[in-house]
Amino acid sequence: MKRIVIVGGGFGGVYAARALERQLRGLEDWAISLLSRENYFVFQPMLPEVISGTVGLTDVVSPLRRLLRRTHVHVRDVESIDVCNQTVTAAPGFRQRPHVVKYDHLVLAPGTVTDFRGLAGLPEHALPFKNLADALELRSHVIRALEEADIEGDDPELRQQLLTFVVAGGGFSGVEVVAELNDFVRDVARLYRRIDPREIRVVLVHAQDRILPEVSPKLGAFAAKILRRRGVELALGQRLKAATGESAILDDGSVIPTKTLVSTIPASPHPLVDALALPKTKNGRLVVDASLRVQGYTNVWALGDCASVPTSDGTPCPPTAQHATRQARLIAENIGATLAGKKLRPFDFKGLGKMGSLGRRNAVAEIFGLSISGFLAWFLWRTIYLAKLPGWGRRLKVASSWALDLVLAPELVELRLDRSAGAVHEHFESGQNVFVEGELGDRVYILLSGRAEVVRRRPSAGGVAVEQVFATLGPGECFGEMALLGSAPRNATVRCVEPMTVLSIPKREFGLLAANVPGLRGSFEQVMARRGLPPS
Amino acid sequence: MKRIVIVGGGFGGVYAARALERQLRGLEDWAISLLSRENYFVFQPMLPEVISGTVGLTDVVSPLRRLLRRTHVHVRDVESIDVCNQTVTAAPGFRQRPHVVKYDHLVLAPGTVTDFRGLAGLPEHALPFKNLADALELRSHVIRALEEADIEGDDPELRQQLLTFVVAGGGFSGVEVVAELNDFVRDVARLYRRIDPREIRVVLVHAQDRILPEVSPKLGAFAAKILRRRGVELALGQRLKAATGESAILDDGSVIPTKTLVSTIPASPHPLVDALALPKTKNGRLVVDASLRVQGYTNVWALGDCASVPTSDGTPCPPTAQHATRQARLIAENIGATLAGKKLRPFDFKGLGKMGSLGRRNAVAEIFGLSISGFLAWFLWRTIYLAKLPGWGRRLKVASSWALDLVLAPELVELRLDRSAGAVHEHFESGQNVFVEGELGDRVYILLSGRAEVVRRRPSAGGVAVEQVFATLGPGECFGEMALLGSAPRNATVRCVEPMTVLSIPKREFGLLAANVPGLRGSFEQVMARRGLPPS
Repeated sequence: MKRIVIVGGGFGGVYAARALERQLRGLEDWAISLLSRENYFVFQPMLPEVISGTVGLTDVVSPLRRLLRRTHVHVRDVESIDVCNQTVTAAPGFRQRPHVVKYDHLVLAPGTVTDFRGLAGLPEHALPFKNLADALELRSHVIRALEEADIEGDDPELRQQLLTFVVAGGGFSGVEVVAELNDFVRDVARLYRRIDPREIRVVLVHAQDRILPEVSPKLGAFAAKILRRRGVELALGQRLKAATGESAILDDGSVIPTKTLVSTIPASPHPLVDALALPKTKNGRLVVDASLRVQGYTNVWALGDCASVPTSDGTPCPPTAQHATRQARLIAENIGATLAGKKLRPFDFKGLGKMGSLGRRNAVAEIFGLSISGFLAWFLWRTIYLAKLPGWGRRLKVASSWALDLVLAPELVELRLDRSAGAVHEHFESGQNVFVEGELGDRVYILLSGRAEVVRRRPSAGGVAVEQVFATLGPGECFGEMALLGSAPRNATVRCVEPMTVLSIPKREFGLLAANVPGLRGSFEQVMARRGLPPS
Repeated sequence: MKRIVIVGGGFGGVYAARALERQLRGLEDWAISLLSRENYFVFQPMLPEVISGTVGLTDVVSPLRRLLRRTHVHVRDVESIDVCNQTVTAAPGFRQRPHVVKYDHLVLAPGTVTDFRGLAGLPEHALPFKNLADALELRSHVIRALEEADIEGDDPELRQQLLTFVVAGGGFSGVEVVAELNDFVRDVARLYRRIDPREIRVVLVHAQDRILPEVSPKLGAFAAKILRRRGVELALGQRLKAATGESAILDDGSVIPTKTLVSTIPASPHPLVDALALPKTKNGRLVVDASLRVQGYTNVWALGDCASVPTSDGTPCPPTAQHATRQARLIAENIGATLAGKKLRPFDFKGLGKMGSLGRRNAVAEIFGLSISGFLAWFLWRTIYLAKLPGWGRRLKVASSWALDLVLAPELVELRLDRSAGAVHEHFESGQNVFVEGELGDRVYILLSGRAEVVRRRPSAGGVAVEQVFATLGPGECFGEMALLGSAPRNATVRCVEPMTVLSIPKREFGLLAANVPGLRGSFEQVMARRGLPPS
């Protein structure tokens, strides 16, 4: 039995598997395997609709096993690929042993990843927007922020952070996210008795001087006008530089207080592709020839966002679904031709156009050279994407959700995912408090880089409380453990004086470890003794 | 401004708030507050349908803010109640400070909790089934088990664990869960190329000798027949005694290998009620008079599963939604009467009947003394509960989901929730391996109770590998750290020889802590040195 192995469950991988199922029909000695982290395919164009719940939470994804009836689907992360021994190694499942799949032909379509490394605080505090889990998390986070704003009536600073929503990236993805987010927040805020709609800020940060660089300036200006009219602030010509748990920091130094920061940029090469010793372009995409074979190999193929596919005019293909699905069909055809010893065909597709939804019956589109905006573009958007959604079942579900959405109010259920049970990194900027004297202790911290000071309020001669600095903390030092060991409120404030990264361990976790790991508690006590003060 | 504070967002709390909104209309100086952990109300009778995805994942819950337009909803856990100072303290939100709400009248409706304490291994390995998160987790877990069974073709032992699903508790809740689970698993298994439907086992464990003790023996026997016909095994007269990560252990000592164990029992008093110094019955329910006031108080009321409400024949009310909603209306009326200085009315409701769905157009019902089973009961079930579902929007959504379900195949999307990032407890029974020589290391363990041995395979004289015990481990000892520190495969097998509980720390977590907490790594190295062997 010979085997074609496809890595990736997005547009490239899934459509390649579908095309191969047709192409290889009748060839009994060939099997197709597809490895994907999730057991479903995400229909990216409709993902932003999950934020507002316009469509059911799982309606924009299709189970792989329904789409691919003749493919062996392995729902596992891929850990490594060996092009010499022709194997793909998947992560372990319930048993801790590697799962190795041999291949005769390999199709690479892992896509790109959102990689915030190098941007201070973004890995810890920015929300990506790429897969279904991201969309659900953003949705839950936004509802949580509204719930808390409704309760925290007398803390204007916290309210401002809770009611400000920032999206970075003004391409199609960022614009669609900010439009959905803005509509949703402003719509449901009316249900919160203590939120004044005028308190809500939604900001789109974009590095260029106009949004939607993918389309003509006219359409970009149209989209900007629509967004502004609905209350979205545009911060143009600005880049996101850093983030903390309570603010977004732009490269001109301005600080936007916020608890909700979504970044749709940057797309980085997938670590799997990164680790492969195959020819790559400067920006880390695989170099393939016009027939989509990776340079230097006859049985390794690549498509979609991970590959740099040449077009007839010399520029590489843009990373869109319409290109990936056509590349997928060509790869199936060319693998068929290789098996039959026939000639390969080159990739030649110009693109049909571009569309982006602005929500509320509004969109922009460039199709066959025509610029369309407004209701007609929105109608086209819905019709075309509904038709492209794979599977009749999904189409029916989405169409029925859209119909119900016309008469029903938006969904407001917060699915609490409770993800961060363990230790996490947190980033703080100068002047920011890690915790404040008198608060309850819920975490212990280890300072990894940067500097903080320990301050306490003391009554002064005049009766006014003044702050007094008790100690300065540097890398390697722990703080905040007393409140956990003793369950008393924080007896001091810890404030960042130099941008810092800390390891933050939740109370439950620290309790479990301190009670059971012999050296841990002692180690904290030594640090406290060195510091020479009873720490907060 | 005077305040009525309701604790709990289930049938009792939400219906009390709704009734109070009507009762107090026009009384401008009274405000109603409701505290709930979730921002939605779960319509329990339809919760099992989330397992199979017959209804949309959020269709069986209603956002509290839509149901309660004139109530201040606080979406927070309640931490404590002080009946002397008349305050309710909620858990902190983003800022670590307590949130205290004063009350003039208090309505207690926190319900019960699933408490597995005292049952070895259940807290770690059994899935509860009470709220939406539980239903989603069970659903995802079941799909994960099928995905893994499809991959793990050559490990019959693991396949058996993956393809066996055990539900404990044969009351309405357990029967509805096992019926949905069984239908779903057997239905979707056909999509998995390497799963033979005959490999699937679904087991219902129940302590009594017949299921559905709530209804007549005839209906119970009918339900048992239907379940058996669909492939559910009934383990009657048996109790669940313990659980490990790979088995359910019954009180007659029999072991069912399984990775999926759901327990719908036991319901224990809510910790909040436990902590209150109020009169309680032997089983921890609050003692209230016929007007639903807690004994000894004129401004503390209780209803639903947390209260023992006397009926005219002396027996306490059963814990059902129909009783809770009627108690809720009476409490509103009686609080109104108290404010107006009028006489209180006693609770007097006999119950209308009982219904339980068996899935696939089948149910059992006892209504007005009539026993009904089969399609008619199922039709009644759907009609009555659809009418009871609060809000027209939900009814429309559920009705449309049910209509689509007639033509569409069941949903198969696995929502990965990735919850266990931190340290967790795990339970092992004698003979069970914690890990096996040669596996990859993904966790480090601290033995809290019980005993384990470290064994290695060595070639013997005859060339056959024999096992040799190298060490015995007891409480306080760590193992498994070498594979993490060095990234080598496990160099020995660790096997439980006396039932044990361990603290299990994932690789990522251990790495973060070992790199940054000064004493931690040293402490592990000391343990290793004491043990006198290079540990696995």
